[in-house]
Amino acid sequence: MKFNGVNVSIGRNVSIGKDVRIGDNTTIHDNVTLDDGVTIADHVIIGEPDSLYYTDSQYINKPTIIGKSCLIRSFAIVHAGAKLGEFVNVGHRATIRENSIIGKHTLIGMNTELQGDLSIGDYCRFQSFVSVGKGTKIGNYVFVYPYCVFTNDPRPPSDDLIGCTIGDFSQICTSSILMPGVIIGQHSLVGAMSKVASVYEDDSFIEGNPAKTIGRLSKMPFFNQSGKRHYPWPYHYSKNMPWEKLGYEAWLAIE
Amino acid sequence: MKFNGVNVSIGRNVSIGKDVRIGDNTTIHDNVTLDDGVTIADHVIIGEPDSLYYTDSQYINKPTIIGKSCLIRSFAIVHAGAKLGEFVNVGHRATIRENSIIGKHTLIGMNTELQGDLSIGDYCRFQSFVSVGKGTKIGNYVFVYPYCVFTNDPRPPSDDLIGCTIGDFSQICTSSILMPGVIIGQHSLVGAMSKVASVYEDDSFIEGNPAKTIGRLSKMPFFNQSGKRHYPWPYHYSKNMPWEKLGYEAWLAIE
Amino acid sequence: MKFNGVNVSIGRNVSIGKDVRIGDNTTIHDNVTLDDGVTIADHVIIGEPDSLYYTDSQYINKPTIIGKSCLIRSFAIVHAGAKLGEFVNVGHRATIRENSIIGKHTLIGMNTELQGDLSIGDYCRFQSFVSVGKGTKIGNYVFVYPYCVFTNDPRPPSDDLIGCTIGDFSQICTSSILMPGVIIGQHSLVGAMSKVASVYEDDSFIEGNPAKTIGRLSKMPFFNQSGKRHYPWPYHYSKNMPWEKLGYEAWLAIE
Repeated sequence: MKFNGVNVSIGRNVSIGKDVRIGDNTTIHDNVTLDDGVTIADHVIIGEPDSLYYTDSQYINKPTIIGKSCLIRSFAIVHAGAKLGEFVNVGHRATIRENSIIGKHTLIGMNTELQGDLSIGDYCRFQSFVSVGKGTKIGNYVFVYPYCVFTNDPRPPSDDLIGCTIGDFSQICTSSILMPGVIIGQHSLVGAMSKVASVYEDDSFIEGNPAKTIGRLSKMPFFNQSGKRHYPWPYHYSKNMPWEKLGYEAWLAIE
Repeated sequence: MKFNGVNVSIGRNVSIGKDVRIGDNTTIHDNVTLDDGVTIADHVIIGEPDSLYYTDSQYINKPTIIGKSCLIRSFAIVHAGAKLGEFVNVGHRATIRENSIIGKHTLIGMNTELQGDLSIGDYCRFQSFVSVGKGTKIGNYVFVYPYCVFTNDPRPPSDDLIGCTIGDFSQICTSSILMPGVIIGQHSLVGAMSKVASVYEDDSFIEGNPAKTIGRLSKMPFFNQSGKRHYPWPYHYSKNMPWEKLGYEAWLAIE
Repeated sequence: MKFNGVNVSIGRNVSIGKDVRIGDNTTIHDNVTLDDGVTIADHVIIGEPDSLYYTDSQYINKPTIIGKSCLIRSFAIVHAGAKLGEFVNVGHRATIRENSIIGKHTLIGMNTELQGDLSIGDYCRFQSFVSVGKGTKIGNYVFVYPYCVFTNDPRPPSDDLIGCTIGDFSQICTSSILMPGVIIGQHSLVGAMSKVASVYEDDSFIEGNPAKTIGRLSKMPFFNQSGKRHYPWPYHYSKNMPWEKLGYEAWLAIE
């Protein structure tokens, strides 16, 4: 059992809701809110201070909010200033830096890093080893697969950062990179190992290095096991999505 | 010295063989077997429960087996339900998820993740930062280099997963991705940064984005420092392989 | 506060300078020097022994030197035999292996791994998730972006390793790989997702899979927000660089 209260360190001004569990060897820094039902596993750091902490004796930690029923797994680090909505799930060794705003029911996979000053919507799923740069804006129901990178510096090195924007329901497949300022519409798919550097409308299938629009995603011959066109995918996949019980069409009607 | 018995946590029904060492700050969960001669370094988690553990009061951990003389290095996580053969070496921060079956003398490098429900043969070497999806089947003497990804979802997101299959003695070079259902024969090589999406016979040299068969690997002008064709590589490389003393030809004769 | 002296382990023959801070749950192994002003965060391992440590009862740890005012962040591992110059900053979960020589004011980002037997100059910046192979030689003021890999084995698997060499002021952009023995001159830029396999003179712009020289970097139409050609970049970017106060031209004149 990992909730024995062994070697747990809790800072000042930490607000702990009902039914909160904190794992062994875990540190909660100053000014953290853990809402009701939050589970923090072992060897986790919540409210990790930024580097000023080491040099400024007047340093005050930014507020960190871990929403209701979040689960944060072993060795994860959540920096001060992050805000997680309810039911967010953070995998082993993920890193969430300052001013990352994460919507409800979103999954941040193992070893993924969110570099801060970014926003991610509701019901997104980031697989392992994703790197998301400052300034990125990601909608709802977006899935991102391993080793994708959201970049932000068009002329490195510089301070002229421009984040990427991804529309609702879009899929970014394994090992793809999005160049600074990329905008992808809703219900689109970026094929694996693509280097994407432009602006794309809704329902795009984008692929290649350099990436091009191959066609409308909903018209591509991507058939699933029941022999139907798989995209738009919410008609065919609903696991842990808000339309899981109603079906996508009925859910859309009441949204 | 890291074996001081400081802050070590051992669950119920843990079987510990002879000459087993367990590092400081390490947690062994319920139903784990550590065979003779196993070394677990510090800050390691063995038998990490799946997420049901956090919600199901009747949760029972699956059995985890760490074979004879395995070495598990710092900050690694081995999930409940994994089975490691003898002399397996697991690097810093590697993650081995449930129902990963790993053969003897295999090396799982630093930061690599095995996503579970997969099998890896004997004497394989996975370098750092490899991601292996559920359903993957890897033979013996297979080497995989950094940032390779074995994918499994042909129409993301879906539950229609199809793993990849890799034959004995094959090499998968840096930053390559294998699309769902790829089958690669024996004694083949995938060049770096390739996107592989088909079925390939033995002795293939495969490269590019998208990848194509360039030719028979044994016929390619890949000469080593002694001026000989390097492939099939076991004639020229034997470090820690079972033919190290006999030579490959003599070993083949008795295999 | 993370400097409470809780669960700190300090080996034999450890030299600790003035104003050194060591975080909770951190281990310092034998024969480590921490110069004045060094800060080691929590859950860090310094002087991690190599694998002989587990089998050789006569094992003696190589000396490890952490220079003046270095900052090593949480969960990082610095192996025995590494030497860090002054003001080096090591991010969360970075791994620095034996005989890595790192110049002053260099930043090693989160989750990056230096595989050892390599050298990195002064004022370099490695972002997160970079993998640097044995034998690599990197100059000064070099920036490397996420998921880049510096390889070293031309005919895998073999022991005929040849490292890569990168000149001063060069930029290696996201998800690029450098094949064994690559030499890149000064003031060059490798575009994102490139597979680089040759020798390049100074001021090269290199891109693609396979990569080609596109042209002289200083002649490319890469304009920054003030409408000027951005390269050579030190004329336009100086944050934390030694010419930050003087300007690049004046600094060059006195260098």
